[in-house]
Amino acid sequence: MINAMNNLAAHVWADNVPELATASWSNALLLGRELVTSGMTGHPVTRNAAEAGEPLDAYQQTLLVLGKILALAEAAGGHIGNIYRLTVYVTAITDKEAIGRARKDFFAGQTVYPTSTLVEVSGLVFPELCVEIEAGIHLDADLRSLIKQAD
Amino acid sequence: MINAMNNLAAHVWADNVPELATASWSNALLLGRELVTSGMTGHPVTRNAAEAGEPLDAYQQTLLVLGKILALAEAAGGHIGNIYRLTVYVTAITDKEAIGRARKDFFAGQTVYPTSTLVEVSGLVFPELCVEIEAGIHLDADLRSLIKQAD
Amino acid sequence: MINAMNNLAAHVWADNVPELATASWSNALLLGRELVTSGMTGHPVTRNAAEAGEPLDAYQQTLLVLGKILALAEAAGGHIGNIYRLTVYVTAITDKEAIGRARKDFFAGQTVYPTSTLVEVSGLVFPELCVEIEAGIHLDADLRSLIKQAD
Repeated sequence: MINAMNNLAAHVWADNVPELATASWSNALLLGRELVTSGMTGHPVTRNAAEAGEPLDAYQQTLLVLGKILALAEAAGGHIGNIYRLTVYVTAITDKEAIGRARKDFFAGQTVYPTSTLVEVSGLVFPELCVEIEAGIHLDADLRSLIKQAD
Repeated sequence: MINAMNNLAAHVWADNVPELATASWSNALLLGRELVTSGMTGHPVTRNAAEAGEPLDAYQQTLLVLGKILALAEAAGGHIGNIYRLTVYVTAITDKEAIGRARKDFFAGQTVYPTSTLVEVSGLVFPELCVEIEAGIHLDADLRSLIKQAD
Repeated sequence: MINAMNNLAAHVWADNVPELATASWSNALLLGRELVTSGMTGHPVTRNAAEAGEPLDAYQQTLLVLGKILALAEAAGGHIGNIYRLTVYVTAITDKEAIGRARKDFFAGQTVYPTSTLVEVSGLVFPELCVEIEAGIHLDADLRSLIKQAD
């Protein structure tokens, strides 16, 4: 759901993506046709899983995070093809293969993927998190209909 | 102050935000109505405080950095409501509460905050720094007049 | 080379910048006049150099990475003056001087440089890498013709 647009910016809110009333940040803001997102994590699902003794691995967390990003895109009237950039923060660089696999499964059917920057950081906001992703989303872009250039 | 705009880009310079003539980067560039900023730190105030034996904590450094970001926004003709994105690099993830507090104090009165990505990195450009923030600023956005969506 | 633009986005591909057919990301996407890039590294040149017992240092890797970024800009019809933002991830903060030097040599003749955020991360995708750079490029910006503001 989107605010009445009294200026270029609007707050975007998705039913299934938690955003506490007390938070000092927004999950997503629409600026014109660009949807700007906070770095998203698997919290609180990751917390519950960890407390139940079954912590989520990088593949599972990545799918969960990409699902939240898609939910935000859809809340703004968009779709999976609008996601054009991913900045991926991991706590263990060895998880890069699992994250690549999750990305392929999530964007299945696309030949052109979002750009991606992936670096290992020394910590994320909760200890059970192993991946955080910030996405760039544009409602007028559709990667699903693009053909990959090559030699 | 802003250059005569002979193209989409212009160099933005604020009186109270140091930018050395010898620096190999710009603090801020205006691209159309988007103000792009370098990651800002509390330097040199943080250096002077550390040398005086009274290093600034995360709360103090965050307010200092957000103040610089606002000064750059104002130098481009903007205001606090134009700040729509914060990428926050910290050296200790435990500082996240103090940073959230500083963010609430700085954006006091807003119900909608900028988006935020906060990760712990292993180092910033000077050892006395505990927070660096890169901001996204758009002169046609005004978060102050937005209403937060919710259930 | 650029796709026929059936929407705001197009895949950009440069002859001398490797992009595996199996990769789960794009090196560069054009969104209107904005060229979005993945974090670029010196791979595979850095790998070959390391295996030959002559690993590339931060200065060499930075020039190599900036060269790739420029190749992507040129493949999209642009030039060096279009590069307006650099996000620099290093594995050793002490390399910041070498990186600044490489930046000055690369953008030689410009008085206004791109913005830059530089942080030390705990790991990049390959152990021989010491720098990764993500760039913001806009085909309608030209930093070469800008004059730096000052006191």
